[in-house]
Amino acid sequence: MILVMKSNVTEEQIQAVISFLESHHVRVHLSKGEERTIIGMIGDKKILKELPVETLPGVERSVHVTHPFKLASRDFHPDDTRIRVGDVEIGGDQLVVIAGPCSVESRDQLFTAAEIVKAAGAQMLRGGAFKPRTSPYSFQGLKEEGLKILAEARERTGLPVVTELMDIEHLPLFEEYVDVIQLGARNMQNFPLLKAVGKTQKPVLLKRGLSATIEEWLMSAEYIMAEGNPNVILCERGIRTFETATRNTLDINAVPVVKHLSHLPIIVDPSHATGVRAYVPPAAKAGLAAGADGLIMEMHPDPSKALSDGAQSLDPEQFHILMQELKQLAHALGRGIESMVSSH
Amino acid sequence: MILVMKSNVTEEQIQAVISFLESHHVRVHLSKGEERTIIGMIGDKKILKELPVETLPGVERSVHVTHPFKLASRDFHPDDTRIRVGDVEIGGDQLVVIAGPCSVESRDQLFTAAEIVKAAGAQMLRGGAFKPRTSPYSFQGLKEEGLKILAEARERTGLPVVTELMDIEHLPLFEEYVDVIQLGARNMQNFPLLKAVGKTQKPVLLKRGLSATIEEWLMSAEYIMAEGNPNVILCERGIRTFETATRNTLDINAVPVVKHLSHLPIIVDPSHATGVRAYVPPAAKAGLAAGADGLIMEMHPDPSKALSDGAQSLDPEQFHILMQELKQLAHALGRGIESMVSSH
Amino acid sequence: MILVMKSNVTEEQIQAVISFLESHHVRVHLSKGEERTIIGMIGDKKILKELPVETLPGVERSVHVTHPFKLASRDFHPDDTRIRVGDVEIGGDQLVVIAGPCSVESRDQLFTAAEIVKAAGAQMLRGGAFKPRTSPYSFQGLKEEGLKILAEARERTGLPVVTELMDIEHLPLFEEYVDVIQLGARNMQNFPLLKAVGKTQKPVLLKRGLSATIEEWLMSAEYIMAEGNPNVILCERGIRTFETATRNTLDINAVPVVKHLSHLPIIVDPSHATGVRAYVPPAAKAGLAAGADGLIMEMHPDPSKALSDGAQSLDPEQFHILMQELKQLAHALGRGIESMVSSH
Amino acid sequence: MILVMKSNVTEEQIQAVISFLESHHVRVHLSKGEERTIIGMIGDKKILKELPVETLPGVERSVHVTHPFKLASRDFHPDDTRIRVGDVEIGGDQLVVIAGPCSVESRDQLFTAAEIVKAAGAQMLRGGAFKPRTSPYSFQGLKEEGLKILAEARERTGLPVVTELMDIEHLPLFEEYVDVIQLGARNMQNFPLLKAVGKTQKPVLLKRGLSATIEEWLMSAEYIMAEGNPNVILCERGIRTFETATRNTLDINAVPVVKHLSHLPIIVDPSHATGVRAYVPPAAKAGLAAGADGLIMEMHPDPSKALSDGAQSLDPEQFHILMQELKQLAHALGRGIESMVSSH
Repeated sequence: MILVMKSNVTEEQIQAVISFLESHHVRVHLSKGEERTIIGMIGDKKILKELPVETLPGVERSVHVTHPFKLASRDFHPDDTRIRVGDVEIGGDQLVVIAGPCSVESRDQLFTAAEIVKAAGAQMLRGGAFKPRTSPYSFQGLKEEGLKILAEARERTGLPVVTELMDIEHLPLFEEYVDVIQLGARNMQNFPLLKAVGKTQKPVLLKRGLSATIEEWLMSAEYIMAEGNPNVILCERGIRTFETATRNTLDINAVPVVKHLSHLPIIVDPSHATGVRAYVPPAAKAGLAAGADGLIMEMHPDPSKALSDGAQSLDPEQFHILMQELKQLAHALGRGIESMVSSH
Repeated sequence: MILVMKSNVTEEQIQAVISFLESHHVRVHLSKGEERTIIGMIGDKKILKELPVETLPGVERSVHVTHPFKLASRDFHPDDTRIRVGDVEIGGDQLVVIAGPCSVESRDQLFTAAEIVKAAGAQMLRGGAFKPRTSPYSFQGLKEEGLKILAEARERTGLPVVTELMDIEHLPLFEEYVDVIQLGARNMQNFPLLKAVGKTQKPVLLKRGLSATIEEWLMSAEYIMAEGNPNVILCERGIRTFETATRNTLDINAVPVVKHLSHLPIIVDPSHATGVRAYVPPAAKAGLAAGADGLIMEMHPDPSKALSDGAQSLDPEQFHILMQELKQLAHALGRGIESMVSSH
Repeated sequence: MILVMKSNVTEEQIQAVISFLESHHVRVHLSKGEERTIIGMIGDKKILKELPVETLPGVERSVHVTHPFKLASRDFHPDDTRIRVGDVEIGGDQLVVIAGPCSVESRDQLFTAAEIVKAAGAQMLRGGAFKPRTSPYSFQGLKEEGLKILAEARERTGLPVVTELMDIEHLPLFEEYVDVIQLGARNMQNFPLLKAVGKTQKPVLLKRGLSATIEEWLMSAEYIMAEGNPNVILCERGIRTFETATRNTLDINAVPVVKHLSHLPIIVDPSHATGVRAYVPPAAKAGLAAGADGLIMEMHPDPSKALSDGAQSLDPEQFHILMQELKQLAHALGRGIESMVSSH
Repeated sequence: MILVMKSNVTEEQIQAVISFLESHHVRVHLSKGEERTIIGMIGDKKILKELPVETLPGVERSVHVTHPFKLASRDFHPDDTRIRVGDVEIGGDQLVVIAGPCSVESRDQLFTAAEIVKAAGAQMLRGGAFKPRTSPYSFQGLKEEGLKILAEARERTGLPVVTELMDIEHLPLFEEYVDVIQLGARNMQNFPLLKAVGKTQKPVLLKRGLSATIEEWLMSAEYIMAEGNPNVILCERGIRTFETATRNTLDINAVPVVKHLSHLPIIVDPSHATGVRAYVPPAAKAGLAAGADGLIMEMHPDPSKALSDGAQSLDPEQFHILMQELKQLAHALGRGIESMVSSH
């Protein structure tokens, strides 16, 4: 960490800062430039971060030269992390497609969706049981019943299931029924929830918050990992910007940035990142081309009957065509998309 | 709600949409313009909102003509809501200043802060007991002990206390020790938490999310109110933008917008909205001038010893001077800031 | 256009609005819903847009149901526009790669760059002669000398050249020396400049403004086209958001949105959209996968000697490898990247 | 400037960077921390800025420790700059209100507006003659005729006039007819235009770009000042964010930030910053309370007949009331708003 001193800093102020730092066992490196004096702080990162150095007289600002995350950092763990979910591996050579309806609406709807998803060559099934809705008056999901239907769909198809956890008290149910626990964008900094899933060993799909920086997102992964659960899959799902032509703005740059900073796998959600069905295929392809390890997409057997997110859900035919295109693309990128072998 | 049809919509598609709507008991109003056909939908707002109309062939997009909130809306409740907290009323002619340290650090620190805050003329005391921190390695607060210290400070000074709730399981403690429950920016759409505080009658200070629209913020107030708790105080604390010279961007426009759309009181947090001590006084004054019902600010007895947010905390002298200026300003605005009469 | 009336609008106000509109030869379509009255306005779009209807008593807001652009709209011109530049066509099946240094620094530097770019299989050469720089103290380009060097490079390699115009008074020089006139992000709404290039027939590469909506961007294309020049190539080069890990945020969604709304070709600039050399290849691939008609990229013979934008410039080897990968990708996408046949 | 080296940097890379810097006459200060090595660069700021140091092997990123502006900086010029326009001074104790219609529409309209503005106690008159419009089909202003009407209005009322320059070729007309040259948000980085007005001595009202950082804005002021014109007045007019309830987001924090970094006067434009008439008065008051030196506002004699921006223009009565409130507010802030003494 570096302190940039004010242009009119006095020698007394500089000495006072140095004394303060040394009294906290921080080694100091002083550098006087033509316009500014700079004080380098050398010591334990955790201690440095907590010192209220910006409040000291003469200090203009502090600059962090290292990233605040450790367990999530590629510096700490140079090789790519691969996460196993049943027979599926995320983060390896093979790309993973997770698909299914926004919400679990009924046994029939989900089973139909699961068969379509599997037949088209996807590896995992998604579907919301507990739904975070902006309005208290909107459909809030089938709740525990939805989790049971998901588990049944897994039994029928062999596809591992992913669904969103919103409330710590439901965690035991998720541990029983679910293969991957999704934490939604709105809960990316719900720290008690992060800590709670960190105490399990279930893989966690951690969506990026609507206005979270990549660094904050990795710090949320760090919260989970610091509790002992290394199985974090990051999911870029669009950020909030001034543009209104799409529901969100897919931050495609985030894919290579995350790959550079972290060893964790990252997937892309083109459905939420665009909010418009017609834009999902190009955004999905862009995600893979940028280096993502997979995709999570909304597919509904009949979008015009969807209880939520119908406008951004692909229909079965669109999904089938897209999967064919994605397989060709994956091949050109030197990776692949392998269908699940049915053992059922 | 209005449907704007595509420019190349066919007569069959229009009739199919009308049939679909009428089968859901929605009355239809058809309007053919020179470039576009528009279909007005008349019926129960909750039903309209759930219909997947954007997925129907020929529909380009839907436009909402009413706001989705009801209980929080000024249409529904034309008069300003005033919320009573002990001897203090928020939302009336008198402006309310809430101040105190970012975190409760010790009995001494909080008691000293409380005396300074009261002496300068503030009406309520703030201080974090459970702290949401971006890093799992940062100071996380004194927790239950912090709540007890806050309650003691109230006993000593008569100032009601405000502190942040992050976890539903702590709600009983908050009901026991705290006067106003704060929900932080990161939890603005933590729907289980919103519902839980909605089941109490404790006043709730609802901070705006970092990238929440004003409409989403009012929908979160609606979540609380829909559960039966009408005592919601909104708090504008800065939004996230591209500007990096300040920690956040104080959306001062939000004050008159909220006053226009809603009857709920709104206060401004100039400490988080700027992140820099020197900018807190001008931002505080701007908040009152824009029509806010009060302020919440960080004041630390000795900012250079603060365990969190030292850089944006006022020191006692700065706070005292600012309070004098705010009183003059309040007077010029036709309102006032009344010191609490000590009954202790 | 639609007027949404206030919830407490009176019958007199409604009649006054109708009279006002009819006096301006606008046909009116009245629709009274349960919560709101809506007035549809039918007439000439240009007249509607200019009426100050939002100022009339009882009106809450107006909603536009059509897009404001016409010549740039796919409704008006359903087929993709293909733009010919020498032997190159932009907007057809073949993808176009434009590459070269940020700035023309010397005859040697540009000629070397041009040979590398051509050998790797790119179709056009870029290089700045007049440089828009945030600081008045930064290198501002070789100016007219730079244009001449670009023209010479075209003579030597057969590659058409693209460079940025900042000042109307230089337009005659550009007409003489340059094949495609680039308008930079900062000048996207420099209306006199848009009109001036609209009076030529030179192809124009119109970069999106840092915070321009897609609609505003297409309106700037409309300015050029309305003056008589149909040869507009759009260029997505990243928008400004809160994220600081990259110089800008590549709005990859903009590619399919533009393809949906407009018939104009669109290319992507992964160099400015990321600002970091290591992120250029994944962003370039994402651009093509999303459906862009080409790319514009910075390549410097020796980035460590670059006078501007060295940090985001590829070196020759990186560029060569990327071109190989892009060719494979283009093939998988059903398109291609054809090297220029050298006739020199 | 500081270089932060990669965590895996080698000793050879460090030495190569040092040699590179020393060969460019930069003094070097090496600091090896526990996690990172840092190289301080000491030398002429202009040289440092141009070196492509981020491209050198082993360098992770560079950090600027000083601001890039000089003439605009308070470090360089500690006292507030006061700019005289006729009998008016901007930047002193007295606050300045500039008001008038968005566009000059006719002699009658402007003269009526000017009388109203003066009678209410404003100091200067605004009105657009050349209008930057998003659509080529919208009213583009009366052009030269508008400038002449403005000059006549000044003769009649004694109020200095402000209007926007979009095109360098009109500069001689502006020098003849206008008191303050306004540069609009879209032209904040139109560098040829900045340089051109920098060659005059006319006061320049420099609006902040829609997504310009405060630092970029001050660099644009620097462009003008570097050409020899020190008379720059900054104008905060709202930035572009995700919030759609208002036309723009008034960045009220920018007022104290600019006051801290620069000696130049700053005013606020509450009309464009909100886009909604009802929000103009609270935003105007907030601007003054935050420390701005004045305001620029839209007032139309009859907003329902305005050819542009009617929805955000105050009517005469609203303006009169607001001026009374602003005078009281200015007094409470220790400043004032003095009416012009009529010498006509």
